[in-house]
Amino acid sequence: MQISELAKSITKSKIRVMYDLARKKENVLSFTVGEPDFMTPKPIIDKANEYLSKGYTKYTPNPGIMELREAIAEKFSPALKRKIDPETEIIVTVGATEAILVAMQTVMNPGDNIILADPYFTSYTNQIKICHCSANLVPAKEENAFCMRAEDIEAAVNERTKMLLLNSPCNPTGAEYCVEELEQIAKIAVKHDLVVISDEVYNTIRYTDEPFVSIATMPGMAERTIVVNAFSKAYAMPGWRLGYAIGPAELIGMMPKTHDVTVACVNAPHQYAGAWALRNCDEEVARMREIFRKRKDLIVAGVNGIPGLKCFEPKGAFYLWINIKEFGATSEEFCFDLLEDQSMAIVPGSGFGAYGEGYVRMTYAADEAAIQEGIRRLEAYVKKLRAGK
Amino acid sequence: MQISELAKSITKSKIRVMYDLARKKENVLSFTVGEPDFMTPKPIIDKANEYLSKGYTKYTPNPGIMELREAIAEKFSPALKRKIDPETEIIVTVGATEAILVAMQTVMNPGDNIILADPYFTSYTNQIKICHCSANLVPAKEENAFCMRAEDIEAAVNERTKMLLLNSPCNPTGAEYCVEELEQIAKIAVKHDLVVISDEVYNTIRYTDEPFVSIATMPGMAERTIVVNAFSKAYAMPGWRLGYAIGPAELIGMMPKTHDVTVACVNAPHQYAGAWALRNCDEEVARMREIFRKRKDLIVAGVNGIPGLKCFEPKGAFYLWINIKEFGATSEEFCFDLLEDQSMAIVPGSGFGAYGEGYVRMTYAADEAAIQEGIRRLEAYVKKLRAGK
Repeated sequence: MQISELAKSITKSKIRVMYDLARKKENVLSFTVGEPDFMTPKPIIDKANEYLSKGYTKYTPNPGIMELREAIAEKFSPALKRKIDPETEIIVTVGATEAILVAMQTVMNPGDNIILADPYFTSYTNQIKICHCSANLVPAKEENAFCMRAEDIEAAVNERTKMLLLNSPCNPTGAEYCVEELEQIAKIAVKHDLVVISDEVYNTIRYTDEPFVSIATMPGMAERTIVVNAFSKAYAMPGWRLGYAIGPAELIGMMPKTHDVTVACVNAPHQYAGAWALRNCDEEVARMREIFRKRKDLIVAGVNGIPGLKCFEPKGAFYLWINIKEFGATSEEFCFDLLEDQSMAIVPGSGFGAYGEGYVRMTYAADEAAIQEGIRRLEAYVKKLRAGK
Repeated sequence: MQISELAKSITKSKIRVMYDLARKKENVLSFTVGEPDFMTPKPIIDKANEYLSKGYTKYTPNPGIMELREAIAEKFSPALKRKIDPETEIIVTVGATEAILVAMQTVMNPGDNIILADPYFTSYTNQIKICHCSANLVPAKEENAFCMRAEDIEAAVNERTKMLLLNSPCNPTGAEYCVEELEQIAKIAVKHDLVVISDEVYNTIRYTDEPFVSIATMPGMAERTIVVNAFSKAYAMPGWRLGYAIGPAELIGMMPKTHDVTVACVNAPHQYAGAWALRNCDEEVARMREIFRKRKDLIVAGVNGIPGLKCFEPKGAFYLWINIKEFGATSEEFCFDLLEDQSMAIVPGSGFGAYGEGYVRMTYAADEAAIQEGIRRLEAYVKKLRAGK
């Protein structure tokens, strides 16, 4: 019996490896999975129950219900600085995950490649495999605040490069591209006729007062950018599987094709709840962001206070990216040993690409007490390491 | 800007074409879309609301929550005549649609082919395109009660044939394979080492007292059959997007790989509601089946009573497959003209493959009054056709 090369080539993400190891041991403090520790706000739950009780249990239009697409258009037209047409420029998907895969399938032919930063979120490279395309990796180094440099992007472009994927704020590093960097990258995309997927799922979880800027607002980019977002992080709704893509009609209009035969449509009653959430829950979103901000301050101070560790101050998202290069161990060795020694689970940076080696990712979507205990365990472990040196 | 060959190659299904045309006209009687006209039974809705209120809003394990996998194992172990292991032999998916796509991705390499009956459900061939594989079509002719003949299947097998897809009871024809046919097909699958996808979403909507038989129960088939099912048809839950696949651990264990990076997981609270439905709603399922049976009797008698039309008596599902060959028109001409003349929408058989030409599909997931009016309009139209001859 045959297993496809595709299935064989997809390996378990190191996030999942550490998460599973943590579950097999008792009393492990786990900072592995990237989901808010909060439950979905109750008003959204009540709304979902109301719509389900009303009987919205049939298939919806393939690109999503108009009510949700209208709510998305209202929300994003100001931020994207153009009037988004809900009829032709939005598709509702099973989380950001499906939106990104479908966007790739809509543009690339087998053998094409897509530029993305290394380190990268683990799903991207496997989605690229589903398209039988390749990842064209550009380093995002610490000296550049974990952003790709425009000149490195331009040098990477070749004749099979059709897309560029930007994830800002970034999982796993917490990096964010500034306006000047976005401008430079946009110029390259225009020059080489690249379609850009802008994964903006952390656009509401940011720790600066500057408004979020999407690459879609740069000159020439509205017509070539597929903005991807979801309810998972901002509204604490990961288990609802509700996401969407916004872009030019020429591209969005083609996305229902593979979307239709992949999932048919998205959960019907929860689309209605999502529309309501977009229109009514800004305060809830802000409230959760402020909690993440407090945790971020706590964890950055705590980890930077541990001799030998050095962490990047996240500009957004809820991950701490810690430099462990002083210890000489690989990031896997560090994480396995930490789990063994201190019953604490974090994720090896090498799981996010070659340029992730020498780093570990610690999620701070956890309450303050857990974070404080995590810092304590990390400190105890590092102390031992240094003593043993 | 580039659109992929894949996206270009996927054309709008004729079900959707007719559905959309029907919506643009006023007072159209539409028998196009394949979903139950019922709302989901209220007890299932109440259960879903209960679970959502309890706060099951986070990601679930990638292959689905254990409670649902256990309920599926309990339900299907007797029918599949072996003890299904919920841990290793079941994956929960976004409807049957995603299960079928992921099954294909798990077995086939680009360039491989999969045998399926013509006429076929429209999504299949597009899913095959996503895998960059080809459909190896075997006719399912009227003289064989719209089933593929084993000898035709065997003749179609070539060195790139890796899978066979069986849909029994069948959309669009209402055909069902008998035990002897399943035995013969199973022998071919074993002989040529084919993995079989058995799409059994209509296994509870059948009009015979014989118990449903899955090809997975034939000798040598448990280890090579991926049984696909969903809540959409049996439980009137199409908009919930809840399906699953059951098969050998060797295959099911590989399916989370593409599933993970396609959808991450399935809607969390609705997985719990699904588990409850499987354990508590046999009566609801039987009640809906009896309603479909009455409609089936009504529509078969009505359509066969129209001179010039001849329909196949469905063994399952809720579609009537009507032979219109006497009129010489293509099935598209017939359907467009019927819509124009009588404001009644049905689907051209050519939308389901070359062997669907000469037939039209009329869904009877509609109430009796609508069905009676549909028969009346069909009769009026055919009368005119015959008068004009």
